[in-house]
Amino acid sequence: MSRNPAFPPSASDFLLASKRCEITVLQQLLQMGKLVGGVSQLIHVLQRERGTINVYLCSRGALYGEQLAGRMQQVQQAELVVQRQLARLDASAAPLAGASRLFSRIAWALHNLTLLPMLRQRVQNLQVNHPETMNTFNEIIRSLLALVFEAADACAEPGMARQLIAMFSFMQGKELAGQERAIGSAGFAAQHFSDDDQRQLLLLIEGQERCFQTFSEFADAGSLGVWQKMLQQQDGEFERLRRVACTQKQFSGGKDISLRWFDITTARIDGMKQVEDRLEDALMASCRASLAAANEALANEIYAPQALAESYAVFVADPRGEGETLTSDGISPRLGRSMMELIQQQSQRLQVLSEELTAVRASLRERREIERAKGLLIQHRGLSEEDAYKLLRKMAMNQNKRLIDIAQAMLAVADILPEK
Amino acid sequence: MSRNPAFPPSASDFLLASKRCEITVLQQLLQMGKLVGGVSQLIHVLQRERGTINVYLCSRGALYGEQLAGRMQQVQQAELVVQRQLARLDASAAPLAGASRLFSRIAWALHNLTLLPMLRQRVQNLQVNHPETMNTFNEIIRSLLALVFEAADACAEPGMARQLIAMFSFMQGKELAGQERAIGSAGFAAQHFSDDDQRQLLLLIEGQERCFQTFSEFADAGSLGVWQKMLQQQDGEFERLRRVACTQKQFSGGKDISLRWFDITTARIDGMKQVEDRLEDALMASCRASLAAANEALANEIYAPQALAESYAVFVADPRGEGETLTSDGISPRLGRSMMELIQQQSQRLQVLSEELTAVRASLRERREIERAKGLLIQHRGLSEEDAYKLLRKMAMNQNKRLIDIAQAMLAVADILPEK
Repeated sequence: MSRNPAFPPSASDFLLASKRCEITVLQQLLQMGKLVGGVSQLIHVLQRERGTINVYLCSRGALYGEQLAGRMQQVQQAELVVQRQLARLDASAAPLAGASRLFSRIAWALHNLTLLPMLRQRVQNLQVNHPETMNTFNEIIRSLLALVFEAADACAEPGMARQLIAMFSFMQGKELAGQERAIGSAGFAAQHFSDDDQRQLLLLIEGQERCFQTFSEFADAGSLGVWQKMLQQQDGEFERLRRVACTQKQFSGGKDISLRWFDITTARIDGMKQVEDRLEDALMASCRASLAAANEALANEIYAPQALAESYAVFVADPRGEGETLTSDGISPRLGRSMMELIQQQSQRLQVLSEELTAVRASLRERREIERAKGLLIQHRGLSEEDAYKLLRKMAMNQNKRLIDIAQAMLAVADILPEK
Repeated sequence: MSRNPAFPPSASDFLLASKRCEITVLQQLLQMGKLVGGVSQLIHVLQRERGTINVYLCSRGALYGEQLAGRMQQVQQAELVVQRQLARLDASAAPLAGASRLFSRIAWALHNLTLLPMLRQRVQNLQVNHPETMNTFNEIIRSLLALVFEAADACAEPGMARQLIAMFSFMQGKELAGQERAIGSAGFAAQHFSDDDQRQLLLLIEGQERCFQTFSEFADAGSLGVWQKMLQQQDGEFERLRRVACTQKQFSGGKDISLRWFDITTARIDGMKQVEDRLEDALMASCRASLAAANEALANEIYAPQALAESYAVFVADPRGEGETLTSDGISPRLGRSMMELIQQQSQRLQVLSEELTAVRASLRERREIERAKGLLIQHRGLSEEDAYKLLRKMAMNQNKRLIDIAQAMLAVADILPEK
């Protein structure tokens, strides 16, 4: 709506405002899409730095020391990009639905990132506890992923919500792959995998499968194609080493096998980044296309003020002059009828969008509720994540219900669950 | 967030932005609350004008002719108030979630209101078809109610969403009461009720009960108390006249009984307006209270920039000077920990709000889906509204399911339902 709206406000003013609001939302989405792309890159270089530090610490400083500085610089560059996007965001993103939650997530991620400089200093001097260092990196990446999740959740356009969910799921799967690389590297370097290591590896593998499953359901065909091609071309040795890590306690090979594992898993993770880039491209392309379509519609359709004024002029000049009264918003009844149609079209279109979005969100919410129900079982029954999932699945099968029904039932009675 | 944010943006900037967004949302809600109040008043005087015109037309101009001008003026005054609120809205309401849908509803309502001046001229001259006139009024009021519904649906604060739903349901019930008054007045004036009149009256009574039931579930205790007191004090003659209208075809009494019905139902509807005003007061009061609390929190809490700067000064002046490094956002690790707690608090609070809101919306969505399923049955099976509702209920009972499960199942297969 213009800055000095006519008074009294008319139906066409608000129909126009409705269209313009849609465009504003798409513009904000474009900004969010860029931010998500920046975060994807930041997470990728953080994963690299974490991997390098992991090998450096496992080898007590013998390996990769010369690479630490370069990894840090890559992270700092990616951080700067994200910071610039964030600085641009704040001026205009406040209107976004759920902006307060998004901003709270950003605060969390920014705060976590401030822990890095000190940690790096201590890593350099080998003054750190290895698992604690990994946990700090994991936590930073987790907070960045939470930011992407929030962006997907706040997205008000169903097509882009689907793509953001695909993106988020894929990024989460990639992060689990990064953690698998870290545990594998440490174990192969130490020539030993504990029971706990092996249990964790299995969980990480299972978790990746779930994430990539969600990705497959929500992704565009192009990105999915890149991913499937990558799976087909996967190095056979990768699965052999996975099997060794998950099943054998002791083995020979030492430093070589550790570096081999690191290289293979790094190539896999780099390949995943290409899928992510493709997802990002698709996201931005569809956002730009929607924006262009909305702008064109706004420029061309009859309710653009100019077009309305022209039709009005034609009507007034009508030689038949049958004396149709103009209604108080300056639209003749004849034009008014087509205005009514336009309003109804807009209203129906928004309703369809809203229903699609509800369906996409419901599907996302279900996944989240299942995760929360698992969390409850872990907390109250002392189960492992794996066992919690199995228990939920068993209860669902026994009652002939869906997993989500059991999860929701569990959340509904959460208050009365006994503490472990 | 300030217009010239520091670069790089810090965690505390975004925590502050998150809080400020909440305040912006509450301010917008305050505006929406005022608009809903204005719409409530506009609907009330429209109902009055409709009632007066109804009696005027039924009496072929013998009754209430002198009241028409006054009724029109009341509507025009209320329209002006709403127009002023709308003019204020457009500048700042774009950020509201669902603003495009809201604006599209406003366009619909404004367009409908433009039909009034011409209609009034024709009424004055008794040049109109009576049912058509009533339908135009009904449609105007329906579009204003849809606007209130959209405001409730777009509301992002669970407490206020509940109150807006209570308000919307009550307004809808009051409108059905207005339609009941109109059919009753016409029937008593004509000394005859057709089968169709009586069927419609029963539907209107049943509809009112459903609306007031929803209102009772969502309303604050004060407003509910006013409503319950009003029910207890209700004129016994009202239910007697209702029974006559719903069951007898012919009766004596003529003009007197028609005016008596009109007076009693008008008193009832005016009483309802008092409940609505009370709802509106409660809505505004809770919105103002949330806003005051949020503003106070923002001013007092530790992450206010000044407070942060002060704590920082204290820390720097610490004589122990144990050399804790400042992290890159200028917050010491010790302060950083409490910053982390604040971020987590904010994040958890927003999560709880979001879950409450999801529950409130789900309950609203279920009602809407049941209405849509009924609509499908009316359209595809040629059932009356009453029979559609009964069929849904019967299917639910037979399958031992909830009404909403059946409604959703029906909507899911809507595409393959045969046309009547």
